[in-house]
Amino acid sequence: MIGAGLLGTSIGMAASKAGLTVWLSDTSHEHVRTASGLGAGSALPKDAVPQLVVVAVPPDHIAATVIAALETGAMVTDVGSVKELPLLEVSDQVDESALARYVGSHPMAGSERSGPLAASAAMFDGRPWAITPHVHSSVEAVELVEELAALCGAQTVRLSPVEHDRAVARTSHVPHLLAVLTAGLLADGAPEQLSLSGQGVRDVTRVAAGDPDLYGQIIRGNRVAVTELLVDARGELDAMIRAIKSSDTEALGDILTRGVAGTQAIPGKHGGPPLETGAVFVAVPDNPGELSRLFADVGQIGVNIEDLRIDHDPGRAVGLVELTVEASAAEGLRTSLEAREWTTHR
Amino acid sequence: MIGAGLLGTSIGMAASKAGLTVWLSDTSHEHVRTASGLGAGSALPKDAVPQLVVVAVPPDHIAATVIAALETGAMVTDVGSVKELPLLEVSDQVDESALARYVGSHPMAGSERSGPLAASAAMFDGRPWAITPHVHSSVEAVELVEELAALCGAQTVRLSPVEHDRAVARTSHVPHLLAVLTAGLLADGAPEQLSLSGQGVRDVTRVAAGDPDLYGQIIRGNRVAVTELLVDARGELDAMIRAIKSSDTEALGDILTRGVAGTQAIPGKHGGPPLETGAVFVAVPDNPGELSRLFADVGQIGVNIEDLRIDHDPGRAVGLVELTVEASAAEGLRTSLEAREWTTHR
Repeated sequence: MIGAGLLGTSIGMAASKAGLTVWLSDTSHEHVRTASGLGAGSALPKDAVPQLVVVAVPPDHIAATVIAALETGAMVTDVGSVKELPLLEVSDQVDESALARYVGSHPMAGSERSGPLAASAAMFDGRPWAITPHVHSSVEAVELVEELAALCGAQTVRLSPVEHDRAVARTSHVPHLLAVLTAGLLADGAPEQLSLSGQGVRDVTRVAAGDPDLYGQIIRGNRVAVTELLVDARGELDAMIRAIKSSDTEALGDILTRGVAGTQAIPGKHGGPPLETGAVFVAVPDNPGELSRLFADVGQIGVNIEDLRIDHDPGRAVGLVELTVEASAAEGLRTSLEAREWTTHR
Repeated sequence: MIGAGLLGTSIGMAASKAGLTVWLSDTSHEHVRTASGLGAGSALPKDAVPQLVVVAVPPDHIAATVIAALETGAMVTDVGSVKELPLLEVSDQVDESALARYVGSHPMAGSERSGPLAASAAMFDGRPWAITPHVHSSVEAVELVEELAALCGAQTVRLSPVEHDRAVARTSHVPHLLAVLTAGLLADGAPEQLSLSGQGVRDVTRVAAGDPDLYGQIIRGNRVAVTELLVDARGELDAMIRAIKSSDTEALGDILTRGVAGTQAIPGKHGGPPLETGAVFVAVPDNPGELSRLFADVGQIGVNIEDLRIDHDPGRAVGLVELTVEASAAEGLRTSLEAREWTTHR
């Protein structure tokens, strides 16, 4: 494991837990000590001959680290958020027999925090982990990387590097950038204006709080796919401005309807089709134990909660909890909660 | 109350609960019957002389309804999401003495659902309710509308109609439109691409699921402020595209950093400054009762939960629950939960 940060340490912990021997290396000796202490493996011995080298370094350092790792004769993967650019850089510098031993991958997991202290063996449980074979990669290398991902508890998804980069541009990088754009507009807002902020704008902008340095590297690494989609977005934005300026009811309606369709295109819970759900709102005093009492009651009522959100009421020591449940169960849950003296609405 | 939909019925329920006599009218007799049944008031008698008329009709019908209501000699407010345009339309058609009796307002509450069946007396509890006096409005009218909002449990915020419209353009309408833009890009994505969707893109696009007809009316009604901000956003988007195309690390870093500042500018819980928080992730089997068991444990540990979110793991019957707590309490909570045999990470 080259790089004992959040991802490297987490993979080391999960792989060690699964019975593999993991050796750790990092430019920071402190990180290696911390990661070892957390059970992610032990410091790399001088004469070590690894079967698989996992490169878990910042995006800008991936290609050079992969090239150096291939010189050991081992299989090599990296876990960066962008796959095509590092592959091109590696292909330029190594011959085909070495290139056969390299297969990129990308676990869809992480945290707003970074460093080994934020790591966890459970981080990949049930998450997608993209494996991105290329024309020169050997079957053995692909299968070995898939085995690692599966041992870490992830669901593997095979995509070409280009397909992967286009997919994450659409589902992650461009949504991140448009959230940054929205948050940037708030940065100019007067406090009186922002006092009218509700849960909606909090949700839209949450991801924009991510580390600018890391996201800068990711986005520059995927600049072709990202730019292409951002140019599409600009075209849509122009159409939106035109429709609003000219009060074109039909054009604006079409744009808003397409947005609804987009939200419905995201796969539902457990990868299945989106479930028809209903919401029940419950007023909960802002004290330890109140949420616990609510969930004890919901558990006794026997309804499964699909999703839930706490809405912060500015200026009041009461939270509004939104419980999302299967549509057919919503009314019964509300009535049962009212019977237990909770204040609810739909 | 003219209009017995979601907002009208909810205000009727809250006002009736506070001891006021409420009369209801709606073009749909069915809505009036439903709202009455929910305790929102009774059908408007022929000889009724109301003190205050609340106009709770769709945006495009507000001005005409306010003008008709002013003819009764009563004080009048409306509860639409846009304030300047209806005021101008009303000002054009009534004299100053009638205009003095009209003060617009806007409760910051609602639901993805609509109609009286989705109503609740608790909807305004602790929420901001903007009151928008204008140069001709009388002190009596302003105070009466503020009294209604306070009786409904809301926190009143005074703003001019123009200030209000600029504020909601920034905190609600433009974030909604940029979420629509992001969701629109998903509508074009292949299912393989969308299988890599995580919680981030779900949050960014959630509000884009709102009713296109209603949002179309709101946005057209606030087109000046919305267009101005969207043009700003287009300028920022152009700068973003330039920075990414040219791999300008510094320019992209500045844009991402401004986004972080924007997320920090949103007022924190209870209107105070944002609290320093930490996250604890807990793996929870997807069965009724498991969340209840988790919250019972959290309650016993005695840590107050600031926010929480359930992350749906595609393809697995286990959910990842993210508990947000005060930063200093996070590590203790995690250790205590591990001791109770929960699988956690940070």
